[in-house]
Amino acid sequence: MNRQQLIHQIREKKSFLCIGLDVDLNKIPSHLLNEKNPIFEFNKQIIEATHDLCVAYKPNIAFYEQYGTVGMQALEHTLQIIPTNIFTIADAKRADIGNTSTAYAKAFFENYNFDSITLHPYMGEDSVKPFLDFKNKWAIILALTSNKGSNDFQFILGQNNKPLYETVLTTAMKWGNIENTMFVIGATHEEMFIEIRKICPDHFLLVPGVGAQGGDLAKVCKYGLNKDIGLLINSTRQIIYASNGKDFAQKAREAALEVQKQMALYL
Amino acid sequence: MNRQQLIHQIREKKSFLCIGLDVDLNKIPSHLLNEKNPIFEFNKQIIEATHDLCVAYKPNIAFYEQYGTVGMQALEHTLQIIPTNIFTIADAKRADIGNTSTAYAKAFFENYNFDSITLHPYMGEDSVKPFLDFKNKWAIILALTSNKGSNDFQFILGQNNKPLYETVLTTAMKWGNIENTMFVIGATHEEMFIEIRKICPDHFLLVPGVGAQGGDLAKVCKYGLNKDIGLLINSTRQIIYASNGKDFAQKAREAALEVQKQMALYL
Repeated sequence: MNRQQLIHQIREKKSFLCIGLDVDLNKIPSHLLNEKNPIFEFNKQIIEATHDLCVAYKPNIAFYEQYGTVGMQALEHTLQIIPTNIFTIADAKRADIGNTSTAYAKAFFENYNFDSITLHPYMGEDSVKPFLDFKNKWAIILALTSNKGSNDFQFILGQNNKPLYETVLTTAMKWGNIENTMFVIGATHEEMFIEIRKICPDHFLLVPGVGAQGGDLAKVCKYGLNKDIGLLINSTRQIIYASNGKDFAQKAREAALEVQKQMALYL
Repeated sequence: MNRQQLIHQIREKKSFLCIGLDVDLNKIPSHLLNEKNPIFEFNKQIIEATHDLCVAYKPNIAFYEQYGTVGMQALEHTLQIIPTNIFTIADAKRADIGNTSTAYAKAFFENYNFDSITLHPYMGEDSVKPFLDFKNKWAIILALTSNKGSNDFQFILGQNNKPLYETVLTTAMKWGNIENTMFVIGATHEEMFIEIRKICPDHFLLVPGVGAQGGDLAKVCKYGLNKDIGLLINSTRQIIYASNGKDFAQKAREAALEVQKQMALYL
C-alpha cells in the first residue's frame, strides 16, 4: 500500500486506528478453544467486527511463533482475510546483516504479503536498506519505544547533546523517504512529539502505548498530527480483550468505535 | 546447557567453533533439491560431517522464515538431530516489550529447545529480562556487530565519552550474569577486544565475521580469549558452502577441521 492510499483510507474512515492482533490462548474466550484453529477464529471475528473502524492491523509475530506451525498458519490465514484496503504491519522487530534482512523481507513482504514490518535500528543502515528495496512496502523503525526499558539507551545524550532516539530519527530519515519509512514513537512519551515533529514533520509515526500502557490519545494527537494525519495509533488489549465472553467481537467493536469517534474529532 | 558444560565441551573437542546453519536454496547442492525437505537434508549432512569439530550450531532464523512452514519444520527437525551436548543458538535477533519477549522466549527455548537466542539491546532491560528467567538458557545480546552499519550508532560517544556499545555492555552486564548472558562482538573489530575484555573479562562472546566477512581468527584469539576460553567463534559460508557439489559435506568437514586445528593451538 502506498502513502496516498493510506491517507485516503484514513480520511474515508475518519480513523487512524491500528488494532494489534496479539493472540494469547490464555486470554481469548474459552469457547473458541474448541475451534480447529482458535487463533485464526479469534482474529477472523475481531476483523469482521472492526475492519470498518480501523485502518491497520498489527499482528505481533511473537504471539504466533510461540505456537509453532499452528501459529504461523493462523498468521498466514489471517493475512488472507484482512481486506486489501487495510494496511498490515508485521510487528516483528527484526534487522540483521544485509543478506539476512533480505531473507526477512522476503518472508514478511512476499510470503505473508504484509505492507510493512517493524525494525530495530541498532545494526544500522545495511540492516534496514533491504526492506526499502520492495515497492510499496514500508520499514517502520523503532525510535522511541513505549516500554520502561526505553530509558536504558534511547535517551543517552551524544556529544551533539541529542538523545540517541533523535540521532536514530535524523540518521534513518536519510535511508529512505516518507513513502517507505515510518518510525515507532511510544505514546507514553507524549511531550517528546513536539521535538520529534520538528525533526520529521512529514513521516508517519506508529504509536503504541495508548490504553493499557497509559498513553494519552488527546496529547498524542495534539502534538503528533501533521497535515496528512501522519499517525497510526495502535491499541491492542483494550480492544481485542474488551471481553472474554461470547460477546468478545461485539465488545471489541464497541471499544474500537469509542476510539474511532475520538479520532474523528481530529480529522 | 550451563556454562560448565559448555567449557567442558570446548576443552574436550579443542574447539570453540560455532557453525552457522543459514540454508539458502540457491546455494545448496542442486542434487538435494529432489529431497523431500532439502533444507533439513542439507543440515543433516552438515551436522553429521562436523559435529565432532564444533561446539555450537547457529541457525539464523531468517533463512527458515523465508521458506514459511516448510522452513520452520526443517528448523524443528534440525534441532532434534543436533547432539544434546552441542550448544544451540537461535540467531533470531529479537526483543520486544516484556510479555512479547516472554512469547519469543517460549517459542525458542520451549518449542524449539534452543539453548540461547540473540537479542537486540535497543529496547532495554525489560525486553531482555524475560529471556533470563529460563534456567540454563542464555541471552546473547548484540553489542558490537560485524556489519558496516555498526558504525551508524554503536560508536556514538555518550557524554561519558564511551561509545554506545560499551554502555550496552556495562548496562546489560547488570541484567544477568556470566551464567546466562553472552555478547555479540563482530570479528571485524579485532582491536576493540582489548577494551571489551577490560569491561567484561569473564563473559562468553559470540564472534561472527571470521572468514567471508574478513575478521581475523588469530587477532580475535589474541585479544579475546579468557581463562575459560570465553569465545564462540562463528563461521558460516566458509564451511557450509565450501562446495556446492555432491562432496559438500566432506568439504564442509575439511573446512571445519582447518579452523578447529587453528583453535587447538590456543587451548
